[in-house]
Amino acid sequence: MWHSWAITWAALPMAAEKLSPALIVRLQDQVHDEKRSMRGEYHGVEVRYYDLLPDCGWHLGRFGIAPDENTCALLLNNPSNPCGAVFTREHLVAVLSTAEELGLPVIADEVYADMSFARPFVACAAATASIPILSVCALSKRWLAPGWRAGWITVHDADGALAAAGVPETLLKLCQVSLGPSAPIQGAIPEIFASAPNGCDWHSGVLKALEESAQCCMRRCRSIPGLEVASEAQGAMYLMVRLKPNALDLGTDDVLLASKLLEEESVAILPGQCFAAPGYFRVVFAAPEKVLEEAS
Amino acid sequence: MWHSWAITWAALPMAAEKLSPALIVRLQDQVHDEKRSMRGEYHGVEVRYYDLLPDCGWHLGRFGIAPDENTCALLLNNPSNPCGAVFTREHLVAVLSTAEELGLPVIADEVYADMSFARPFVACAAATASIPILSVCALSKRWLAPGWRAGWITVHDADGALAAAGVPETLLKLCQVSLGPSAPIQGAIPEIFASAPNGCDWHSGVLKALEESAQCCMRRCRSIPGLEVASEAQGAMYLMVRLKPNALDLGTDDVLLASKLLEEESVAILPGQCFAAPGYFRVVFAAPEKVLEEAS
Repeated sequence: MWHSWAITWAALPMAAEKLSPALIVRLQDQVHDEKRSMRGEYHGVEVRYYDLLPDCGWHLGRFGIAPDENTCALLLNNPSNPCGAVFTREHLVAVLSTAEELGLPVIADEVYADMSFARPFVACAAATASIPILSVCALSKRWLAPGWRAGWITVHDADGALAAAGVPETLLKLCQVSLGPSAPIQGAIPEIFASAPNGCDWHSGVLKALEESAQCCMRRCRSIPGLEVASEAQGAMYLMVRLKPNALDLGTDDVLLASKLLEEESVAILPGQCFAAPGYFRVVFAAPEKVLEEAS
Repeated sequence: MWHSWAITWAALPMAAEKLSPALIVRLQDQVHDEKRSMRGEYHGVEVRYYDLLPDCGWHLGRFGIAPDENTCALLLNNPSNPCGAVFTREHLVAVLSTAEELGLPVIADEVYADMSFARPFVACAAATASIPILSVCALSKRWLAPGWRAGWITVHDADGALAAAGVPETLLKLCQVSLGPSAPIQGAIPEIFASAPNGCDWHSGVLKALEESAQCCMRRCRSIPGLEVASEAQGAMYLMVRLKPNALDLGTDDVLLASKLLEEESVAILPGQCFAAPGYFRVVFAAPEKVLEEAS
């Protein structure tokens, strides 16, 4: 994910410079937000936030700080890290309509595109053609190729607004400043795309395994008094679990829980505080069910 | 080369920040210098220059602006782009002694390491152990793998001065900010190193071909009235050719010559002005001799 963020963050301030001087990003993912904020400040971009609704499929809630004339883009992450949420077409259309009303282009972090088992993944660009969309993706997740360092930004720009603002040229220049994916990897991409289309055995198998792992994690978490699955995981490889107040000896101290789990059981979870979500923790369900059963 | 520069430039200002706030780089290569200056300014590093002596094997001449208490490193490029020079051990020892007297660590751009046919290549770190050296290299040249995007910095630090200044930690952090070479490429490196050692048939063949191409270019350039080979090419894949005053219709306008050659003959050379060397042009002799004969 960081790779696609790196691209977004390298690219967007430049785009932002042309369009307008600020940017909205989502709040929940504080680990990334710290990097974002750092990069945001570095490039002179102000970062604002919106809330997600944990009991409502992690749908988008209200903007913490209202967009103003300096706001230049809405940054959307779907399927979601760390929530495992996958937006329905209806929700996506509603969010994108809001962006359209506000006159905001959308930066879609879609690095988990097509990693959805609860419902079909709908790309932002497939939900609307009315607003400019920069979709950020990579080989790392959908093709299970982390470390390959190959990502891309798809520019959806039906009305030519991004082109008029010089965004494609800026993206090209950025690709030339930081020489990215190596030529052999780039050369392999067409074959990789062709040999693992959506619905192929390999991809279906990956989704099936992810769903079984997610079900396993949710079942085990729910069976533990004091833990609560906020919203069902629908995609990506993550799940957010809530600590019920006063149900555990640790209270709702997610950092303490994570530290004790690592120390005593060698089980790694990420405290919700990393994502500005205290009282939650993130479970990665990418491991095989057997390993997850043992861990839980 | 740009890749190794990118590494140097990403890494060194950080190192510089720890050591002292300025940096010396060589002047001749203005195309790169522009990038360097941009990056230098970007990172708050001042760039100063020294001269090369064209009629003396492109040896280092005097510093244009004398190093002062703000000068933090000497940036050295050997074998040289664009000059094709390879420093003798004696010259290197003399230069490094000066650096030692000035208390300057050396940033050695050695991306053309072992691409030398006129004399053995001597790495800075092999010429002295008295000063800290950061040697920048990559797969791109010696292993003829441009586009592989794999480079490295070797830290030579016998007295621990760089370690004390936190340079290795800074390099590590920089590697984590910009995720560089992809895992498959990194995985291939040991095999690449093992299968093409110095002196193997493949490497000897490459050097032989480069030498023949260099000889061809020098012979053809010398046979043209008005052109003069400043110093014999000894390595890398470049040669600098001087325009004699008043010998050509074009005078010594290297930009006009390059533009007319490209337009009328589809032959590409790079004007010396790109390297702050007006009245010269750079020839790349990486092409097979047959192609070079046709071009010249």
